[in-house]
Amino acid sequence: MSRSDLPISPDPHADVAASPTSWEGDYGMHFPNSRKIHVEGRQGVRVPMRQISLAGGEPPLTVYDTSGPRGTDPLLGLPPLRREWIEGRGDVEATGPHRLPDLAQDPRHGTAEIPTELNHTVIRGTGTVTQMHYARRGEITPEMEFVALREGMDPEFVRSEVARGRAIIPANINHPELEPMIIGRAFKVKINANIGNSAVTSSIEEEVEKLRWSTLWGADTVMDLSTGKNIHQTRQWILRNSPVPIGTVPIYQALEKVGGVPEDLTWEIYRETLIEQAEQGVDYFTVHAGVLLRYVPMTAQRLTGIVSRGGSIIAKWCLAHHRESFLYTHFREICEIMAAYDVSFSLGDGLRPGSIADANDEAQFAELRTQGELTRIAWEHDVQVMNEGPGHVPMHLIRENMEKQLEWCEEAPFYTLGPLTTDVAPGYDHITSAIGAAQIGWYGTAMLCYVTPKEHLGLPNRDDVKAGVITYKVAAHAADLAKGHPRAQEWDDALSKARFEFRWEDQFNLALDPVTARAYHDETLPAHGAKVAHFCSMCGPKFCSMKITQDIREYAAEHGLDTAEAIEAGMAEKAGEFVEKGAEIYVAGD
Amino acid sequence: MSRSDLPISPDPHADVAASPTSWEGDYGMHFPNSRKIHVEGRQGVRVPMRQISLAGGEPPLTVYDTSGPRGTDPLLGLPPLRREWIEGRGDVEATGPHRLPDLAQDPRHGTAEIPTELNHTVIRGTGTVTQMHYARRGEITPEMEFVALREGMDPEFVRSEVARGRAIIPANINHPELEPMIIGRAFKVKINANIGNSAVTSSIEEEVEKLRWSTLWGADTVMDLSTGKNIHQTRQWILRNSPVPIGTVPIYQALEKVGGVPEDLTWEIYRETLIEQAEQGVDYFTVHAGVLLRYVPMTAQRLTGIVSRGGSIIAKWCLAHHRESFLYTHFREICEIMAAYDVSFSLGDGLRPGSIADANDEAQFAELRTQGELTRIAWEHDVQVMNEGPGHVPMHLIRENMEKQLEWCEEAPFYTLGPLTTDVAPGYDHITSAIGAAQIGWYGTAMLCYVTPKEHLGLPNRDDVKAGVITYKVAAHAADLAKGHPRAQEWDDALSKARFEFRWEDQFNLALDPVTARAYHDETLPAHGAKVAHFCSMCGPKFCSMKITQDIREYAAEHGLDTAEAIEAGMAEKAGEFVEKGAEIYVAGD
Repeated sequence: MSRSDLPISPDPHADVAASPTSWEGDYGMHFPNSRKIHVEGRQGVRVPMRQISLAGGEPPLTVYDTSGPRGTDPLLGLPPLRREWIEGRGDVEATGPHRLPDLAQDPRHGTAEIPTELNHTVIRGTGTVTQMHYARRGEITPEMEFVALREGMDPEFVRSEVARGRAIIPANINHPELEPMIIGRAFKVKINANIGNSAVTSSIEEEVEKLRWSTLWGADTVMDLSTGKNIHQTRQWILRNSPVPIGTVPIYQALEKVGGVPEDLTWEIYRETLIEQAEQGVDYFTVHAGVLLRYVPMTAQRLTGIVSRGGSIIAKWCLAHHRESFLYTHFREICEIMAAYDVSFSLGDGLRPGSIADANDEAQFAELRTQGELTRIAWEHDVQVMNEGPGHVPMHLIRENMEKQLEWCEEAPFYTLGPLTTDVAPGYDHITSAIGAAQIGWYGTAMLCYVTPKEHLGLPNRDDVKAGVITYKVAAHAADLAKGHPRAQEWDDALSKARFEFRWEDQFNLALDPVTARAYHDETLPAHGAKVAHFCSMCGPKFCSMKITQDIREYAAEHGLDTAEAIEAGMAEKAGEFVEKGAEIYVAGD
Repeated sequence: MSRSDLPISPDPHADVAASPTSWEGDYGMHFPNSRKIHVEGRQGVRVPMRQISLAGGEPPLTVYDTSGPRGTDPLLGLPPLRREWIEGRGDVEATGPHRLPDLAQDPRHGTAEIPTELNHTVIRGTGTVTQMHYARRGEITPEMEFVALREGMDPEFVRSEVARGRAIIPANINHPELEPMIIGRAFKVKINANIGNSAVTSSIEEEVEKLRWSTLWGADTVMDLSTGKNIHQTRQWILRNSPVPIGTVPIYQALEKVGGVPEDLTWEIYRETLIEQAEQGVDYFTVHAGVLLRYVPMTAQRLTGIVSRGGSIIAKWCLAHHRESFLYTHFREICEIMAAYDVSFSLGDGLRPGSIADANDEAQFAELRTQGELTRIAWEHDVQVMNEGPGHVPMHLIRENMEKQLEWCEEAPFYTLGPLTTDVAPGYDHITSAIGAAQIGWYGTAMLCYVTPKEHLGLPNRDDVKAGVITYKVAAHAADLAKGHPRAQEWDDALSKARFEFRWEDQFNLALDPVTARAYHDETLPAHGAKVAHFCSMCGPKFCSMKITQDIREYAAEHGLDTAEAIEAGMAEKAGEFVEKGAEIYVAGD
């Protein structure tokens, strides 16, 4: 699809500014000359996109947009975009109103209230209600239509990839606010941002702010990794305000319920937690079911042992009970729960390497094989699956991760954390990991979990979240270019053309972060004149190579020399004339 | 060589603090618990290194150091470390005191004065005085001894690589202040930082500050790309204060001499500029001799034409005169000049792509073939050569650049600018390019030219220079790990071990940027207690996976289970006991 032939309608929320105290401000403040449009497709789907208006007679550029409806009140939540689609399938039943679970009413677990408008009616499938289930039956759901239009792909292709397990559309039936997206290696590389309060710091409101801020800059999914008080309440606020899939690690909350003692965890408590979160609308669960008892000793000689929180909790449980974990022994029951709400698996890599020294070791790959085994079981239940991957891996060992995952996990989408390509730069791990993330994205990883500059050091603040998201958008886009996604390069070309033609405002507005790009230009050349000048601060007016190139090209055009051959043929006779005219053109810029 | 068996002596300058108003401050302020040491080798060489002291009985870690003598007065310059080595060879003669060239006394070219102490006696070889010349004669020079010790390599191997042309030691005989370094793919990947005032902004003092600041953070060479007034004087200040090789693009100054009109450039003016700069001590020259007349039309259909300043100047000259440039036609004379001072070639890539759309095109590769031809000619004159490379290249097209360069340029060192792997993120081009730089460094590129966040937008300030250098140190180190440099991983391992053992101070001090790492930790957990705590802000005390792993390992050690097999064997009988003890250990952290 070309840039300008999309059927569009304006966004009704476009002019509503958010509270001035919020992080996000209004859309136009962060994306000047952009507006939210909706591209209309079949089955009534309307896909939000961002359209960037350009100068110089250029057509506007339309880009993928994850920001969701803007300017909404977090106390009211987002409109339930998918409700009709879900109810229209006639395979769900209401199980009652949303309520705080008993345990969450225990003061130890926090007493924060949930605004009335953020409570919702809980539903459950009368049978399997997963996108994979529909896809395998040959149905193209509105969710598939939505992602097809969003990606510029054929809906039937989307269906076939979901049916085959090569892509997932994480979309819990209790998360009607979701704007569906797809994770699979035939599609744009996606990025995930982690948020979540911890026992040490951070509030519910801050987490909602981080969610909205992350999606403004381009987070495709968000994981809520809260571990402190008010876990349930925080999640409810987040889900009702999230246009993107929300992932969680249910074992964190289960552990809170047993007072933080891993050995005291039971299948019953974990199961109850899964249902509680599935009812709230969580779209994917990280489940570390691949951590088997016999793999734990493989980590004893590692430089950095087990670095996954979930992995270490399960490892401790396995050793203490000398049994396989309930995640593994009850895996089919977990599948049944997830099938009834369409929660997708993110099969955790609890034994991922935590340092360069431990990359690609026996423990890591043993677990990956088991992730493959579990993938096949989940597929028997029509449950959607992706697999989590490392971690810390030097560049020359990255490809092996991708190859083994594709082979052992039957091409289920891979979802990696970075990987970090060196350990020597705490404070810059968004960069150490973007190097690895871009590479593994190119090789076929479908989603990249962001890393912020605070990784290993502290909790990310507003600036860190933004730095992490933008850095990962860079990595994902670089990967899209390298793997030849059909829509990727038009964005680069539009920006490069603006740069070459000295359309400074367009160059800023086309940037992933327009305001920062403009601010950097302002630092050296703040005057308005510099935004229309045919030179820039790096070289000054005399040395501008782009200007010289334009002179050469203009000269060629004036003389009808519009192909390389013609220029070469004409050069001899025109040489004298060029000296005269060229010199004049050149000095004019001074 | 292991970390602790280096023969060392303390740095006499170590305690001299620089002016408190300077950017750099003192060494210890930026690198806490580090001190500059000198490792002593044969032929009287003393190689500066940075030694990081650690806690917990760990041996200190010694790392490569580019910062040069610290705390010196920029009005006096650095001590002439190499003078005796150069004079000892008996193949140079003094040609007189340094003086401003006549043209530079023209007020148009600036009237800044050079402090007396920064003037120097100019020397010239009585014949060829290049490191390649000595290497081919079988001589291991003190410069080769120095770099061998610096890299942990055998001096004879260094000599053979230089003789073969696979590595260069840029070391002008008029730059005795230089601490020699080597550029070649068998060695550590190096990084270059660009500085230089432009017609628009920046002063001489600022450029010297940028030089010192760049080398403090790890720049291996610095290019002075000044184009405004006082070019000669700026360069003199820089050279006398630089412990690293200085590169320039002489055509920039030559163009100033002809009032900025490319067509008016002549061989005579260019030649005079080369000699002027060689006498000052410039260590390598970018020479765009590969831009041939017939290649220029190949750029006409490009999205972004010619983006190299030097390349566009030469292209314009070629078109105007309808001849090959004097760089190409007088190439052997250039070689003769460079051989008499040991200036190395950095054969420019004037037709490098300026956008993703133009990567790996006909113009680019045509020039690269000519760079190969010129490399062979330079080698006939025993002149050291590296080749410059792109630019803007998507990841999947990067390898082809490296492969063609190795083949066509006979394995001469490759020196690339990034490459940037996408065009959509102005303001973040240090990151878009670090992704490509790490990759091409792994494939064999010997030196990476840094890109700062201001690329395409403005002149880098202090923070941008630091961001560019650190980002490129990350890329270079990631590449060293991937290509298996024997000394690379010990740094990662030391840091990861500190992380795993909760030696927070060591983790900060081992970081590429210790103060930033510490500040990020302080933001969340400022108390001193947190620096010795066995948990961190990300997970809080209950969820710390590293703590759980340590508990598992301690348990294993207590019970004599020090191998994976033993743990597995002992697990069954110990399970009950572990529940009891494990729970106790775990709760103790709460």
